[in-house]
Amino acid sequence: MIDMEFLSSLVIPSGARMVLLVLDGLGGLPHPETGLTELETARTPHLDALARDSACGLIHAVGPGITPGSGPAHMALFGYDPVRYEVGRGVLSALGVGMDLGPEDLAARVNFCTVEGGVVTDRRAGRISTEENARLCEKLSSIRLDGVEVVIRPEKEHRAALVLRGEGLSERVTDTDPQKTGLPPLPCRPLTEGDEAAERTAALVNRYLEEASKVLSDERPANMLLTRGFAKRPDIPLMTDLYGMRAGAVATYPMYRAVARLVGMELVETGPSFADQVEALAGVWDKYDYFFVHYKYTDSRGEDGDFYAKVACIEEVDASVPRIRELQPDVLVVTGDHSTPALLKAHSWHPSPLIFFSQWERKDDVDSFGERACSRGILGTFPAVDLLPMMLACAQRLTKFGA
Amino acid sequence: MIDMEFLSSLVIPSGARMVLLVLDGLGGLPHPETGLTELETARTPHLDALARDSACGLIHAVGPGITPGSGPAHMALFGYDPVRYEVGRGVLSALGVGMDLGPEDLAARVNFCTVEGGVVTDRRAGRISTEENARLCEKLSSIRLDGVEVVIRPEKEHRAALVLRGEGLSERVTDTDPQKTGLPPLPCRPLTEGDEAAERTAALVNRYLEEASKVLSDERPANMLLTRGFAKRPDIPLMTDLYGMRAGAVATYPMYRAVARLVGMELVETGPSFADQVEALAGVWDKYDYFFVHYKYTDSRGEDGDFYAKVACIEEVDASVPRIRELQPDVLVVTGDHSTPALLKAHSWHPSPLIFFSQWERKDDVDSFGERACSRGILGTFPAVDLLPMMLACAQRLTKFGA
Repeated sequence: MIDMEFLSSLVIPSGARMVLLVLDGLGGLPHPETGLTELETARTPHLDALARDSACGLIHAVGPGITPGSGPAHMALFGYDPVRYEVGRGVLSALGVGMDLGPEDLAARVNFCTVEGGVVTDRRAGRISTEENARLCEKLSSIRLDGVEVVIRPEKEHRAALVLRGEGLSERVTDTDPQKTGLPPLPCRPLTEGDEAAERTAALVNRYLEEASKVLSDERPANMLLTRGFAKRPDIPLMTDLYGMRAGAVATYPMYRAVARLVGMELVETGPSFADQVEALAGVWDKYDYFFVHYKYTDSRGEDGDFYAKVACIEEVDASVPRIRELQPDVLVVTGDHSTPALLKAHSWHPSPLIFFSQWERKDDVDSFGERACSRGILGTFPAVDLLPMMLACAQRLTKFGA
Repeated sequence: MIDMEFLSSLVIPSGARMVLLVLDGLGGLPHPETGLTELETARTPHLDALARDSACGLIHAVGPGITPGSGPAHMALFGYDPVRYEVGRGVLSALGVGMDLGPEDLAARVNFCTVEGGVVTDRRAGRISTEENARLCEKLSSIRLDGVEVVIRPEKEHRAALVLRGEGLSERVTDTDPQKTGLPPLPCRPLTEGDEAAERTAALVNRYLEEASKVLSDERPANMLLTRGFAKRPDIPLMTDLYGMRAGAVATYPMYRAVARLVGMELVETGPSFADQVEALAGVWDKYDYFFVHYKYTDSRGEDGDFYAKVACIEEVDASVPRIRELQPDVLVVTGDHSTPALLKAHSWHPSPLIFFSQWERKDDVDSFGERACSRGILGTFPAVDLLPMMLACAQRLTKFGA
């Protein structure tokens, strides 16, 4: 892994444009009947053509055998050691809904849930609508706590973000989500006994949840909150500062917008479809050096276990690839953040197939985009964290090291 | 390399069974007449079929160009950084013959040798029988030293293990084996002048060897001892603790039984042939999660320089592969610890071919088990230390990292 400060020391100006297109959860496993993965099954004439014109390989987000969440997987794609720069779930939730986080603010991921007879009967409160969620967050805004400001904001469906602002708050506290139905919500506790800041924070969280339970007592199905992933914004050097570039993110989902903001990208307004996203990209082409385009649904359909729906998602992206190439990016990378095989219905550890297109990169004999094809690519299998230096190099944004 | 503590933090329960089958010194070099390696020459219908159903690759035990001993090579296969967790030869000898080692005990590898006219004329004392060795060790048990307990135990043929038990012993002392005939046995010395514990230890070792020389003075050919690899048991986290699993080792040779014990495995009783080992494996199938099966003779015949005898050994293993597959392991890995090309008559640095079979691993187009075929496998060439995380992942024993 190249040290970020070292890499930063080599940066020189360049007008080149780099595009990182991430199909979330792209990689898969072979269908037992055909022996082909989702990507190998999809008809992808444009991605295949791009692979023919490019260098290919496979990338590990964190390491062999390690299944990453989307947070660490994207941090790696942006050139950060994903284990060192771990980002808490609460921070991603809060940034994802557009809240600002100061260095002392404590954020948590919130689920509205249903509690009956003292136990959680639905951890997602029947997936209430985002509108209902917004109404309940408004109602919860009446809660006041001594010494800290509390803000709750709706995300999507049953999800929300909670931020406590005040002095001496600690992230070393436990989740209140019991993770299973049939159990009562857990009290928030310090991770370590005798940790005074954590004890005080846990007491504040418990008081807030008590008040929330009163405020929501006559609501159904969302009559309680579950909190998890308490975290402060980590002290992260911005990629835009490190590499002296302007970066724009075209992402529709809050979490990916959050990671992008965290590393210094600006958010680009976009419609919901992938074609909309590509038009949004075209619309800001002159504004940035580095573009992160995130497509969510390959992961969603993989998590559903719907092999052929994931295939269709890949084909949807393929259709817009010519429009991206029309923009003539100097570097165009197409890959996944991690694999989400429909057979596993979950994120997995398998490395992600990668196309690396640039005038200044070598070509190989790979003539289609697929896991096996990419394993024979000239770039081999390598850590995702190495991708950014390779992109910067091909954007001619790095000078020689040493005489 | 994945940090072991980090990996450990991701472990979740699983009932899956993992088998690591190591053919010692498996990899080779092409025969000058046929251009085929030992493995490529061998008729291996069952391993070829397994390769067809699996992902393949090549693994480096320590790193490119590094020829490992069996100790570090196995440590890497078990997921330990082989350079950081170096295990002294003496420790492997002592554990290999079933001795227990406390943290302060000092162990050494011993060879019976022949000394004539003050110089070593045979470093292996004509490879005396194991029975003769046992008789001599019994005779040597009469030796008493001030302040330390001394135990010597027979290994095989001319090899034995020596353990000193007492306070303040040091492993920073030199070997007494001159490594060549025609030279006198060397005195044991501290590695650094002025190291008091080492000076005291060296003096104790020299006194013991003086006494041993008296005890053996009327024996032939074994009339002296050579000692090497003085070492204490390293402070190693057990893989069984780290990954919350029960592990069993089916190995016939003392050294491999020693490494297995060192990392927390239990030893499984087995007969001497590979078919016996596979039956022993089947016999304890319900008892463990992780099984290490070690086959020695591919290495032995490679060291003999007997190309076709090594080929025959590979074929012997191949014949029992169907019996292993009948047990339906969730993960079955077949590989070597290092290469031992018959052409070199020694361990070598060449990476070891690898078959990785699991329902949850990708497949590639490799349809036979061989060095060149595996180099085209989907797993590429990677460090052996990464193998364990991949096995744990496919055993579904690791949870997701991060949100």
